[in-house]
Amino acid sequence: MRQKPDVLARAIVAKSRLFTVEELQLRFSNGVERTYERLLNRGLGYGAVMVVAMEDAETVLLIEEYCAGVDAYELSLPKGLIEPGEDVLAAANRELKEEAGFGARQLEHLTGLSLSPGYMSQCIQVVLARDLYAERLPGDEPETIRVERFSLRDISRLALSENFSEGRALAAMYLVRDLLTQRGEYQP
Amino acid sequence: MRQKPDVLARAIVAKSRLFTVEELQLRFSNGVERTYERLLNRGLGYGAVMVVAMEDAETVLLIEEYCAGVDAYELSLPKGLIEPGEDVLAAANRELKEEAGFGARQLEHLTGLSLSPGYMSQCIQVVLARDLYAERLPGDEPETIRVERFSLRDISRLALSENFSEGRALAAMYLVRDLLTQRGEYQP
Repeated sequence: MRQKPDVLARAIVAKSRLFTVEELQLRFSNGVERTYERLLNRGLGYGAVMVVAMEDAETVLLIEEYCAGVDAYELSLPKGLIEPGEDVLAAANRELKEEAGFGARQLEHLTGLSLSPGYMSQCIQVVLARDLYAERLPGDEPETIRVERFSLRDISRLALSENFSEGRALAAMYLVRDLLTQRGEYQP
Repeated sequence: MRQKPDVLARAIVAKSRLFTVEELQLRFSNGVERTYERLLNRGLGYGAVMVVAMEDAETVLLIEEYCAGVDAYELSLPKGLIEPGEDVLAAANRELKEEAGFGARQLEHLTGLSLSPGYMSQCIQVVLARDLYAERLPGDEPETIRVERFSLRDISRLALSENFSEGRALAAMYLVRDLLTQRGEYQP
């Protein structure tokens, strides 16, 4: 393990409703000093969850919604913030019900994926959801979310398509395909 | 194609050296109005690049550096901002030389991956680099970057390990493995 840099000073230098920017003055173990900026977790910091919901051994549920960051309708996985008092699996099942209209009898936490670890503290928990059943919960979305079925066999085609771009969602689907292959539940 | 929401108003609500937050007042096609926030591209907006550099048919170069966002040393792919006047491939080769000490005779742009399309405009270009040769360029890193060889056969193990977390890097490596498999250049 390398010795982490010492924090000489820290300050909040910008803040909006959703985003908080912290400036860090760091001294590395070789004596070099640098000023860094990082984005802190939004809100109360209960974290976020992303759901790979499998309808059968190879069909994953994608949702399409307006993404203000890139100003486009895009496909991605159901995801959202964990609410106070919720654990990761409960949050995953709630988001799945709100955004895709399905609940899952089988939920499995796989790993956490960071956003941009050099500049952001955010980490999203990836949950594999199986044994699905129809159940819709009202969410806070401004308009109806379209749900689309997608085969794990076509992930690389999805990655290169116009209406999908999210790196974390791509990673989560590949990871699920890899794990299910290793367990003998998916035949490549 | 769905009709994108109308932008009723927009304003910069927070700004630091690296981050700019824009607030958007949106009206969706069903009449619902919402206030959104999004993070705009840093700096001059030439974009960023991430390099999957293959030393042979299955060995990828990872780098380890301090990540202030998550306050840890982590493994990831070489990456960085595109400089004015550079194209994507030239930026990839420069970052590879600065961070890993290698250049590539063969560079191929695969796709762009967004960070968090609902809240952020950032997109990183994924470049596959092959036919490597030793060449180091001085970078702006505060300390020496450690380079590690990693087999594409072990991606899912990397995904679950303590010192790796970046979703986009995971997606880029899986994507390369998938494409090389399809082309018959990698045997699963």
